[in-house]
Amino acid sequence: MTEGKRKVEVCFSPVIYPEFRNDEAIVVIVDILRATSAIVTAFMNGVKSIIPVATLEEARAWKEKGYLVAAERDGIVRDFADFGNSPYNFKREVIQGRDIVYSTTNGTNCITTAAHSYRVLIGAYLNLDALAGYVIRENRDLLILCAGWKNKFNIEDSLFAGALAEAVLKNNNYSTMCDSVHASMDLWNLARNNMMNYIEKAAQRHRLKMNKLDDVIEYCHTPNLTTLIPMLKENYLTLAD
Amino acid sequence: MTEGKRKVEVCFSPVIYPEFRNDEAIVVIVDILRATSAIVTAFMNGVKSIIPVATLEEARAWKEKGYLVAAERDGIVRDFADFGNSPYNFKREVIQGRDIVYSTTNGTNCITTAAHSYRVLIGAYLNLDALAGYVIRENRDLLILCAGWKNKFNIEDSLFAGALAEAVLKNNNYSTMCDSVHASMDLWNLARNNMMNYIEKAAQRHRLKMNKLDDVIEYCHTPNLTTLIPMLKENYLTLAD
Repeated sequence: MTEGKRKVEVCFSPVIYPEFRNDEAIVVIVDILRATSAIVTAFMNGVKSIIPVATLEEARAWKEKGYLVAAERDGIVRDFADFGNSPYNFKREVIQGRDIVYSTTNGTNCITTAAHSYRVLIGAYLNLDALAGYVIRENRDLLILCAGWKNKFNIEDSLFAGALAEAVLKNNNYSTMCDSVHASMDLWNLARNNMMNYIEKAAQRHRLKMNKLDDVIEYCHTPNLTTLIPMLKENYLTLAD
Repeated sequence: MTEGKRKVEVCFSPVIYPEFRNDEAIVVIVDILRATSAIVTAFMNGVKSIIPVATLEEARAWKEKGYLVAAERDGIVRDFADFGNSPYNFKREVIQGRDIVYSTTNGTNCITTAAHSYRVLIGAYLNLDALAGYVIRENRDLLILCAGWKNKFNIEDSLFAGALAEAVLKNNNYSTMCDSVHASMDLWNLARNNMMNYIEKAAQRHRLKMNKLDDVIEYCHTPNLTTLIPMLKENYLTLAD
């Protein structure tokens, strides 16, 4: 931590992550539809910890050890799993006080990718302002890592990146020279007052609809339902102080 | 070529390219500041062919064989090269009727990456409408490959991608389900009426200014100065019919 301002950067895809790697930064993982929204919801409903795993094989192995397992690919629950990727699956009566294991198409992979950073946090609209406040209090560089869709850019994660970047950049200690930050803030400002309409452009919105999984779109875009921030600690997610 | 509409996609970074690879598509390479603008300019000024090479070692080897060589990294001309990356370097009196070799930080690499596609074209504002017309006449999928900056997203290439995507999508045979297309068209429509102001957000605009190389910004954003389209043929660029 030297002189000068802290920087804000946005990485639109996990495959670009090596170009942004910054071990001194706070990395916020974003997979709005639906992994990070589901993770924040799980903590709102009293989960004790979440172990993110990249592969279905790992998820299955944890299941055999007796853990409660959430696992999906392309939005579809895997047969060995207890449930899938909808925030509505993570109900208090099922998960309170439990350690659960979680594997998704895009989001959980990113979490472990960034494990070497100063801190890895889980971001969603649900905890937007709390995240911005945390980053500013810690006075660290911020790298927002969008899970995207199978390594491609996606709209819903980028919009959220714009919202979070804008909130942090309001603080005078922060600045940016990152083109992805400017682009995501501009997209966020196009979308913010008309989000449910704008999000119709997102391919993932239509994938979820096709699979009758789109009941969560509005919920996943609801800001500030909680001040809880899930954080990676060793190999599991727990609540940040 | 089967039924259904042709698709338009945008790839924001060469490292995401494997996810978009489509051997039946026309791939348009974009590096607005400055490689693809310079290549189009070279053909406007009568160059016979351009051999794009990825590494400086290759460029140097061609120089030793007697070729005219343009080679830069991070905007700076390499000592062994005849000139660098400014469109203004590719003057008629120097290049007319010549075969030249060209290596840049980002752009030339992309050209060879996409070599297996149905066709690889060089895109710039300078030949925007001609490109759109060519793609529509060929009735092929369009993949716009942004060179970006060292594998990161950049603003200037994405804005152009939005302009080209929009022009092609006006044709009824084309549609898109690609989030990057929607994002780039929205950014393009934010920027288009105020481009010299908007482009101030681009990090590359400031890099060029720092190196006193920003005399080309307005030129590189001038639409439709030519109908010429450089095209990859085997290992060199020549004019498309």
